[in-house]
Amino acid sequence: MKGIGTMENFRALAKRVSNWGRWGEADQRGTLNFIGPAQVAHATSLAVEGRVFSLGIPFAADGPQDGKIRTNPARLMKQTGPGDSRYPGAFRYADDYVFMALQAATQWDSLAHVHYDGKLFNGHSIDTLTADGAAVLDITNLLPGVVGRGILVDVARHRGVKWLERGTAIHPAEIDAILDSIGVEPREGDILLVRTGWRRKFIEEADPVSFKNGEPGLSVTCVEWLHRHHIAAVGCDNFGVEVLPGEYVDEYMPFHMIAIRDMGMPLAEILDLEALAEDCARDGRYEFLFVGPPLAFPGGVGSPVNPLVIK
Amino acid sequence: MKGIGTMENFRALAKRVSNWGRWGEADQRGTLNFIGPAQVAHATSLAVEGRVFSLGIPFAADGPQDGKIRTNPARLMKQTGPGDSRYPGAFRYADDYVFMALQAATQWDSLAHVHYDGKLFNGHSIDTLTADGAAVLDITNLLPGVVGRGILVDVARHRGVKWLERGTAIHPAEIDAILDSIGVEPREGDILLVRTGWRRKFIEEADPVSFKNGEPGLSVTCVEWLHRHHIAAVGCDNFGVEVLPGEYVDEYMPFHMIAIRDMGMPLAEILDLEALAEDCARDGRYEFLFVGPPLAFPGGVGSPVNPLVIK
Amino acid sequence: MKGIGTMENFRALAKRVSNWGRWGEADQRGTLNFIGPAQVAHATSLAVEGRVFSLGIPFAADGPQDGKIRTNPARLMKQTGPGDSRYPGAFRYADDYVFMALQAATQWDSLAHVHYDGKLFNGHSIDTLTADGAAVLDITNLLPGVVGRGILVDVARHRGVKWLERGTAIHPAEIDAILDSIGVEPREGDILLVRTGWRRKFIEEADPVSFKNGEPGLSVTCVEWLHRHHIAAVGCDNFGVEVLPGEYVDEYMPFHMIAIRDMGMPLAEILDLEALAEDCARDGRYEFLFVGPPLAFPGGVGSPVNPLVIK
Amino acid sequence: MKGIGTMENFRALAKRVSNWGRWGEADQRGTLNFIGPAQVAHATSLAVEGRVFSLGIPFAADGPQDGKIRTNPARLMKQTGPGDSRYPGAFRYADDYVFMALQAATQWDSLAHVHYDGKLFNGHSIDTLTADGAAVLDITNLLPGVVGRGILVDVARHRGVKWLERGTAIHPAEIDAILDSIGVEPREGDILLVRTGWRRKFIEEADPVSFKNGEPGLSVTCVEWLHRHHIAAVGCDNFGVEVLPGEYVDEYMPFHMIAIRDMGMPLAEILDLEALAEDCARDGRYEFLFVGPPLAFPGGVGSPVNPLVIK
Repeated sequence: MKGIGTMENFRALAKRVSNWGRWGEADQRGTLNFIGPAQVAHATSLAVEGRVFSLGIPFAADGPQDGKIRTNPARLMKQTGPGDSRYPGAFRYADDYVFMALQAATQWDSLAHVHYDGKLFNGHSIDTLTADGAAVLDITNLLPGVVGRGILVDVARHRGVKWLERGTAIHPAEIDAILDSIGVEPREGDILLVRTGWRRKFIEEADPVSFKNGEPGLSVTCVEWLHRHHIAAVGCDNFGVEVLPGEYVDEYMPFHMIAIRDMGMPLAEILDLEALAEDCARDGRYEFLFVGPPLAFPGGVGSPVNPLVIK
Repeated sequence: MKGIGTMENFRALAKRVSNWGRWGEADQRGTLNFIGPAQVAHATSLAVEGRVFSLGIPFAADGPQDGKIRTNPARLMKQTGPGDSRYPGAFRYADDYVFMALQAATQWDSLAHVHYDGKLFNGHSIDTLTADGAAVLDITNLLPGVVGRGILVDVARHRGVKWLERGTAIHPAEIDAILDSIGVEPREGDILLVRTGWRRKFIEEADPVSFKNGEPGLSVTCVEWLHRHHIAAVGCDNFGVEVLPGEYVDEYMPFHMIAIRDMGMPLAEILDLEALAEDCARDGRYEFLFVGPPLAFPGGVGSPVNPLVIK
Repeated sequence: MKGIGTMENFRALAKRVSNWGRWGEADQRGTLNFIGPAQVAHATSLAVEGRVFSLGIPFAADGPQDGKIRTNPARLMKQTGPGDSRYPGAFRYADDYVFMALQAATQWDSLAHVHYDGKLFNGHSIDTLTADGAAVLDITNLLPGVVGRGILVDVARHRGVKWLERGTAIHPAEIDAILDSIGVEPREGDILLVRTGWRRKFIEEADPVSFKNGEPGLSVTCVEWLHRHHIAAVGCDNFGVEVLPGEYVDEYMPFHMIAIRDMGMPLAEILDLEALAEDCARDGRYEFLFVGPPLAFPGGVGSPVNPLVIK
Repeated sequence: MKGIGTMENFRALAKRVSNWGRWGEADQRGTLNFIGPAQVAHATSLAVEGRVFSLGIPFAADGPQDGKIRTNPARLMKQTGPGDSRYPGAFRYADDYVFMALQAATQWDSLAHVHYDGKLFNGHSIDTLTADGAAVLDITNLLPGVVGRGILVDVARHRGVKWLERGTAIHPAEIDAILDSIGVEPREGDILLVRTGWRRKFIEEADPVSFKNGEPGLSVTCVEWLHRHHIAAVGCDNFGVEVLPGEYVDEYMPFHMIAIRDMGMPLAEILDLEALAEDCARDGRYEFLFVGPPLAFPGGVGSPVNPLVIK
């Protein structure tokens, strides 16, 4: 326990913010239900200047994975073409393959990604998780993709640091203070983007071991804030959204456990918010159209994604 | 030759539509240069109802690849979690990996994908293509992603068939007739989506061998139409955009050769335009916001993508 | 049922040949226990001429997998070297990667490969089989490798055909007749190699669909013969050793079920016995040193192998 | 230069031991030509006790690769079976896939692995090395596999250390002294196994970074000794056989360059010689039957292998 409470508290907290049954017993989309056409239409109305930002990091062998849980993408050429005799004429082509963890770089967590006590979101049994993949709650439930209003909460800038230190917890009061300072009020269906500067740290240090050895991030107490405001999804520039080491001695990722499994909220991780954050600081506009389409892997637990922001 | 001309004609045609040098000697973005903030802003202004369509097909083992050139994606579970003893508390997770051709399913061709006569687009040497990947013209040149006005040319519906037969060439006159009938005028920077019904065929037949054994698609003569209208990119629901067998006896994919290598135009392939086409037929609106963000594979020749349309 | 009996008979047969507990409750090596130093020493004494035969097929994209259960190996270059600037001097290198099913080509089945009624060999629970792999009975239990006397039973040659037809069952009496004709008596610890000609069929036809659509092979009744003679392992030139369609209406691979799960016998599949069979017919010697070392994949269910025969 | 000489000396040395043309202009087997039936028969005559040693290390994610050049094998389950409804009866199975560098663990280098000055062994052009693989000198040229007399030169034991320090060069005189002390005379076609203790170091430290950061190994001067004695192949328990940092300032792996490219000698790397070395010290017999069959990857540059020693 690090100032949060006991595991009894954990389960009580999980229960308070639970969305099990909220959208029906069969529901597999969780908080994405907060986004409807009205939310999307409002979001597109924010994209008036035609400037586009890519939040995906490079998918490359020198990425932030340290090899403990996941390895970085391995892209390999299948064909380069010169002198190829398979084609009668001048046509030549190049082609490539990749082997990668679906969560190796910028990614969506599906609602099948985390479980505890034998249950996934909405009470689905973990028996649905086999070597074949996720029979329910897989990544295809995020289709057509997470589209809506994105809002940027730039904690690092707010604190005046390049990046927060590992183990730094971000609490709801700070989120409120930042939103207040930038004049943004949370709306139902928002996609909350939180900048800790952890991506900046990796860009400068290029050290996967340090990147994966703890991180600043959301306190587990944020789940009540997210719940109250009907946030649809959260994205962050660290590898797991939440502060690590976590706030419970005996649980590795308590925010994940509650956000994904109890609330049914997809998480976007390892975002690059650097250019967007610069731009928001410049023009003072911290709300925008967010478009984050996962690839449709049936049974998939996660998906690589290159989310775009359009202002 | 199938009514088009000799290879001498081919090279003359390629020369007429060439964009080499048009945006400077170092340019690696080709026709994407036709899209600027004005084009994007116009496109977002079309997204007023908040309805979203996903154009990506499932990335799965039962996809349309027949194994000759590429295999379908192989997704494998790394972790499913029950009984996992790596974590002290209740936290459990699932995780997965994929091995796939970057062009196995819905995809972008980068400008490094096709070459002939020892040159890539803009005169770049094929020596830049090595086992490391594409040193120039790689898929990261499409970043932040192809965003702009999409327009749907539904040839199958126009002809009143479920799908065009293999070997059916679509000529500029038909594109003009269709655009005329739906009241859309091409604009600089448009993303042209062409529906042949070939995806419908695969959905109904589930036969990769038939899907890859020729296809209906654009005639090579379309390159002049695309060039004249300053189209930024073309997408199609078949596997290679162009009609196959091709219109030159001795060249496998002449449209690819000219579009990618001479014009510098990225192509989107194996799109699922079914739901979008239904919707356009219903509301009569064939123009919309198109958002197609590739993943940033440095050196990558192609990228999987789940393009979204927002109306 | 195809002349064998009911499923009650199946379970009775399985029980009669069961080796559960035979080598202790903790045993994970099964019939490999029949091979000791004496058997190996006898086997090496047969290798007097110094001629070596490789029983492995090519590990290549044009292999016998039809993509239904497994795909053929995909080997990709990582490095080819010319112009590589990573090294200061003249040194250049080439390197490659592979993605493949461990049972994509010539292979060993570990004792964790097949189970039924919730149990693996020797009563081990299937709960030991997780996304991590096989916690017991994995392929490393075959180490240091299957080494012993190999004997070739060339059924195709015995019948005077290039290959047996699909669905052709080989019964114990035929094995006895062949061994009698070649003057070989089975000994404890022998590795029995059975040639159906099915590899020859694939070499001539290059048709994975036909190769995987049924096959000639051992009748399930052979398990009693193998049991009586204390055979250590069986290898075959088809993809699953046993006749398919199988001899029980309701079971896919009854020989596998009993051989692997009840007897604890590793199986070698997709062998190329062509050159060896020619040689044996020439010199009349059907016994030899067999050396089949799996790769040590901890947790692995199978392993690729290139078994050697030395005469 | 580290006491060896200039690069002029390097090229002179390479020329002195060159086997280009020795076995004909088309030869792709190099020093394996030194092994014929007589050598194999002599080797099998040494295997009299029936004891078998496996020289392959585990192929696992916690292997010795540090991820810089190669990653460790990633084995993933495809199927575990419980509750599988694809089969009508009780039959269930488990299956797995692997993604790995062909030289990720214990391995053979083919003669296509290293080149300089635009040439591979025997003068073959590096244009034969494409994204398709090695058109000549590929790993299939080692088939049916390297079988012959193996001799163990246990340098670490000879020096009375657990392992030699990084950068320690082993010179011909020391090899001679060790062979003299164990009463073994090199013969044409021998497979020389050199123990530096580097595998022991990795077993104790489990530190891939340290394992790959230099190593003890053969001095480049050993090539003349190998040449003079008609050695067929060399294996070692480090990752690259030769001492690193290398003996020429400007060349990364001079021994590789000469052994593979000029002499045409396949190298076996990352062997586990620990149990074998113990046994040899115990019984004083340092010669034995060595059986190292690569997998037949057409076009492959390397191959995983589990070499066996039989005494």
